[in-house]
Amino acid sequence: MQIGMIGLGRMGSNLARRLMRGGHDVVVFDHSTEAVAMLAGEGATPTASLEEMTGTLSSPRIFWVMLPAGGATESTITALTALCSPGDILIDGGNSFYKDDIRRAASCRMKQLHYVDVGTSGGVWGLERGYCMMIGGPEETVAQLDPIFSTLAPGYGTVVRTPGRDAKDDRAERGYIHAGPAGAGHFVKMVHNGIEYGLMAAYAEGFDILRNKSSDRLPDEERFDLNLPDIAEVWRRGSVISSWLLDLSAAALAKDHMLEKYAGQVGDSGEGQWTIDAAMEEAVPAYVLSSALFARYRSRVHDTFGDKLLSAMRFGFGGHVELPLGEPGEK
Amino acid sequence: MQIGMIGLGRMGSNLARRLMRGGHDVVVFDHSTEAVAMLAGEGATPTASLEEMTGTLSSPRIFWVMLPAGGATESTITALTALCSPGDILIDGGNSFYKDDIRRAASCRMKQLHYVDVGTSGGVWGLERGYCMMIGGPEETVAQLDPIFSTLAPGYGTVVRTPGRDAKDDRAERGYIHAGPAGAGHFVKMVHNGIEYGLMAAYAEGFDILRNKSSDRLPDEERFDLNLPDIAEVWRRGSVISSWLLDLSAAALAKDHMLEKYAGQVGDSGEGQWTIDAAMEEAVPAYVLSSALFARYRSRVHDTFGDKLLSAMRFGFGGHVELPLGEPGEK
Amino acid sequence: MQIGMIGLGRMGSNLARRLMRGGHDVVVFDHSTEAVAMLAGEGATPTASLEEMTGTLSSPRIFWVMLPAGGATESTITALTALCSPGDILIDGGNSFYKDDIRRAASCRMKQLHYVDVGTSGGVWGLERGYCMMIGGPEETVAQLDPIFSTLAPGYGTVVRTPGRDAKDDRAERGYIHAGPAGAGHFVKMVHNGIEYGLMAAYAEGFDILRNKSSDRLPDEERFDLNLPDIAEVWRRGSVISSWLLDLSAAALAKDHMLEKYAGQVGDSGEGQWTIDAAMEEAVPAYVLSSALFARYRSRVHDTFGDKLLSAMRFGFGGHVELPLGEPGEK
Amino acid sequence: MQIGMIGLGRMGSNLARRLMRGGHDVVVFDHSTEAVAMLAGEGATPTASLEEMTGTLSSPRIFWVMLPAGGATESTITALTALCSPGDILIDGGNSFYKDDIRRAASCRMKQLHYVDVGTSGGVWGLERGYCMMIGGPEETVAQLDPIFSTLAPGYGTVVRTPGRDAKDDRAERGYIHAGPAGAGHFVKMVHNGIEYGLMAAYAEGFDILRNKSSDRLPDEERFDLNLPDIAEVWRRGSVISSWLLDLSAAALAKDHMLEKYAGQVGDSGEGQWTIDAAMEEAVPAYVLSSALFARYRSRVHDTFGDKLLSAMRFGFGGHVELPLGEPGEK
Repeated sequence: MQIGMIGLGRMGSNLARRLMRGGHDVVVFDHSTEAVAMLAGEGATPTASLEEMTGTLSSPRIFWVMLPAGGATESTITALTALCSPGDILIDGGNSFYKDDIRRAASCRMKQLHYVDVGTSGGVWGLERGYCMMIGGPEETVAQLDPIFSTLAPGYGTVVRTPGRDAKDDRAERGYIHAGPAGAGHFVKMVHNGIEYGLMAAYAEGFDILRNKSSDRLPDEERFDLNLPDIAEVWRRGSVISSWLLDLSAAALAKDHMLEKYAGQVGDSGEGQWTIDAAMEEAVPAYVLSSALFARYRSRVHDTFGDKLLSAMRFGFGGHVELPLGEPGEK
Repeated sequence: MQIGMIGLGRMGSNLARRLMRGGHDVVVFDHSTEAVAMLAGEGATPTASLEEMTGTLSSPRIFWVMLPAGGATESTITALTALCSPGDILIDGGNSFYKDDIRRAASCRMKQLHYVDVGTSGGVWGLERGYCMMIGGPEETVAQLDPIFSTLAPGYGTVVRTPGRDAKDDRAERGYIHAGPAGAGHFVKMVHNGIEYGLMAAYAEGFDILRNKSSDRLPDEERFDLNLPDIAEVWRRGSVISSWLLDLSAAALAKDHMLEKYAGQVGDSGEGQWTIDAAMEEAVPAYVLSSALFARYRSRVHDTFGDKLLSAMRFGFGGHVELPLGEPGEK
Repeated sequence: MQIGMIGLGRMGSNLARRLMRGGHDVVVFDHSTEAVAMLAGEGATPTASLEEMTGTLSSPRIFWVMLPAGGATESTITALTALCSPGDILIDGGNSFYKDDIRRAASCRMKQLHYVDVGTSGGVWGLERGYCMMIGGPEETVAQLDPIFSTLAPGYGTVVRTPGRDAKDDRAERGYIHAGPAGAGHFVKMVHNGIEYGLMAAYAEGFDILRNKSSDRLPDEERFDLNLPDIAEVWRRGSVISSWLLDLSAAALAKDHMLEKYAGQVGDSGEGQWTIDAAMEEAVPAYVLSSALFARYRSRVHDTFGDKLLSAMRFGFGGHVELPLGEPGEK
Repeated sequence: MQIGMIGLGRMGSNLARRLMRGGHDVVVFDHSTEAVAMLAGEGATPTASLEEMTGTLSSPRIFWVMLPAGGATESTITALTALCSPGDILIDGGNSFYKDDIRRAASCRMKQLHYVDVGTSGGVWGLERGYCMMIGGPEETVAQLDPIFSTLAPGYGTVVRTPGRDAKDDRAERGYIHAGPAGAGHFVKMVHNGIEYGLMAAYAEGFDILRNKSSDRLPDEERFDLNLPDIAEVWRRGSVISSWLLDLSAAALAKDHMLEKYAGQVGDSGEGQWTIDAAMEEAVPAYVLSSALFARYRSRVHDTFGDKLLSAMRFGFGGHVELPLGEPGEK
């Protein structure tokens, strides 16, 4: 199939490559002419503007927008909406907020355009492993795009089949699903990332407890100097907590036992926060997912006003004086 | 009544003073001869050792041990156990772990000594306001000590009577209770402190949210530069969250709007941890009390190994690079 | 001053009463003619519609809208905006979301109307104790309304003065503050309620731990059958955790030791959720306030899909079979 | 090697089988004569008592105790200690608390016995997949037992090698590690289980949010009726959150979309609690791991005293009346 890829960052350029490897005809555009030239050198059709891309693609046109969520995606979708003709398809493959999809799809429908949102997981590994995709949009449009999704997805691969599974629709087993109407794709991807934060935090807390088992806070005989790379490695073998995130942890620890090149200031990219919003709208408790998010916030500041207030109260009622940083507390 | 006060720190010396003001005969001992001399100057009978104190007190002797929980208290109780005669009373007024009381009481019973544990709240304000006391031990011994507790307690004071209360025992309304057998006093005090951590954390988080409402992360029209001393003050007047801890917060903020003299490294003294232990033994969820404790731990370190692992995983799956400290994240 | 009170529920009618007691001229309207008639019987001027109220009030008119946040408040403000003349003042005294205030204030400014948001704490006790108010809006308008706020507020009362406080503005000490521009009043009130959830949860968890100390899960000698009404009562006297919420707890426990008339399904009214939203927008950790909110969600369902999934996973990896409800677990 | 297996439950009997398949000579004992007979039928040497087993094994004897942690394990170890001769080896392969190991190892050393603790993960799948083992004890003893561990472990298998790993010791890659001195094995296994609770809770919360996206609490256009079996399945393919626990979730959902056969009352077996204890002893924040544990507690009761107190306070300050169960709250 022919498809226009807009945005050639890490994700967009690899998606384009995997599509070309799958025999698709990929037209590319990015504000960076270097990025466009690089993909052109690999077989893509370069264009210098959205207008040129619109002119280059045959009807019905298929655009895949792969830009940062927020302003960049919004303005591109708006511009495309003006350039497109009835029957054209706009795919947002980024990390947009699903309520933006719902709004955009409604406004596309007014112009007989089809809007599809694709939550895409796979990171820097997707080019080789394939991309796990969660898709929202009209049934027929998603069906029409199947050759695209089928190529991008990992396929059956070597993953052991889930016992007891007998669904007629085998797309999930090939690595993509049609989750529901517009917004459903990004919603499922958003919850995926929310879970990701929680899983990561569980490992982080666990390894922190292992790491600090050598603390001189502890009695001598209860102090262990544990080999963290070996522990991560052994857990990859037959343990209940084996996972891809554990594989990555094992790799990181193998290279740098104390993770000394990291400062421990952890970013977040929006989906974690939106997941908590969704939980609250549904009145679902999300203790773990919210704690995982808050720990990231906390990691990015040196001290908090709240902690200063705690110290002030303690001084107020008990005359307690603060300890120097790094002291193990009063105990 | 005659009573021996062992330990003349901030708490012990003020307890001795309040007892003397109430007409009791107080014999004192501390490793610091200055502390002993100071109290002697205020009317107490000084002694230079536990032995001398034992010889000075009339039978049945009453000892009030007011020392840091752990080693100091344990060794003093052990020493007194050896010096005492049947019928003597040992009071541990410190912050001992309640299971230590249960053990000590059993061993005292073997020697016909009476063991009483008193959880004492009131901090630096107790001398004037009186001490709120939670008492564990045998019914008769607690009754025998009533003149002591009655003097130390705040009394009815100006506190408005609880509507609907018609208990025969008015001790609670005078500021002390017989909570149950040995250990019950310190157990109730422990939970009191656990709650205290939770209350403090609720205010801390709330004021943190108020304080950061001026953050340039936020859109201009949603940014407020709030007057925290005024907010704390107004909440003291007819609001649902008025409390003594809020009074202390208002006082701290009135003196130092940004709490600049505090670093925000918050100590903890054991009861918070024991409260979580108790919750787990009972299978009671303690999300809030544990979070309050963990925030104190987190306040005392600059970075954590767990956060470094999060950064390492994020680099592993997405090529994400850490931001400098203080950056608001990727959003 | 003359003021129109719209909404005569529990809060609105008591505000009207306190204003009349303070000598103000109160014009009232409510969809319930009974409510209007009752207030008329107490001295208010009754009206049968917003139009009639607008005709009755002298210019510049002052309207106080005291309706449930959301649709009712929104439609009333919209209707009033159409009826009002330049210079009139609209006060939203309910629990509106502060971003709604920011939007409404901007639209009022276009029509030269003044919009003021008032976060009002005090509940059913406000008529006698006075209302604690947090006010957002233009400086001059808030100054113009001072006689109203001054009457509604508790005033100095018997609250002990905060040591070290020397602010020129004494409004906070009389129970109201001008927090900032439109929205700031409801924002501060929102955080107040967020803190309220956290404080309440701290007491709830603590009393739960006290209550379950009699559990037969525990060894005999570590089991205490604690007198909860007495514990709540004694903590009101000189303890660090004394507060108005504790007073209410003591009153509830005095009447009903086991709180048997409550089912333990706890509502929430929006501010808790908005507070977490605000924390996330500011990247402030809110472990305690969010946990307090989630516990309320959890209290309102019998079981969760998440817990079923946990059971399913446990069966999957370990063959663990679920226990009947009420069983203390596998330990 | 020759080894005595004590305890032929699900775990013990499968360990015995895997050892026999690996060519080891296994002597078995269990209080259930049926269990002993069954293993005898598969090639094991049956014994009818610890004494008989002691007489049957050649010196130095190797005992593997595979019993529930607590009383059963403790009394068996005590009995064996009395029966053994210097040089004999006692292995505790259950889920003992690591401080019990430290204590027992010290007492074994007095009698020149060697004590080894093995944390064993693998559940019902271990017979085929092999067991992931974390071992504590003296270096030489662990080396001496290597043929046993090597047989029980999964071996290299098909797990992709960790990039960058160049440790000389390849045991971790074959599925077992010598974690440190006595107790270190069970400590690492304990943290493993603590992490497991956290991972499970992250999935549980996430699927709960997906499940409740069809709630009629939400506006029509934001409601999705998601296919949970397909979502679990697709996440197994190239997503960041793929894991063995996700595989199990996918299998459970494939069989029973709504997990209707589960009640959602989730047991816990001690390690989760001990992990929080360890975190607190080290002053390491464990928000996620503790929340995961508390959610299990909460799942096992219908209502809590704490929630009743919340309702009582809300009635006290605002006259709020509780809603019937299942109501979505006041909003």
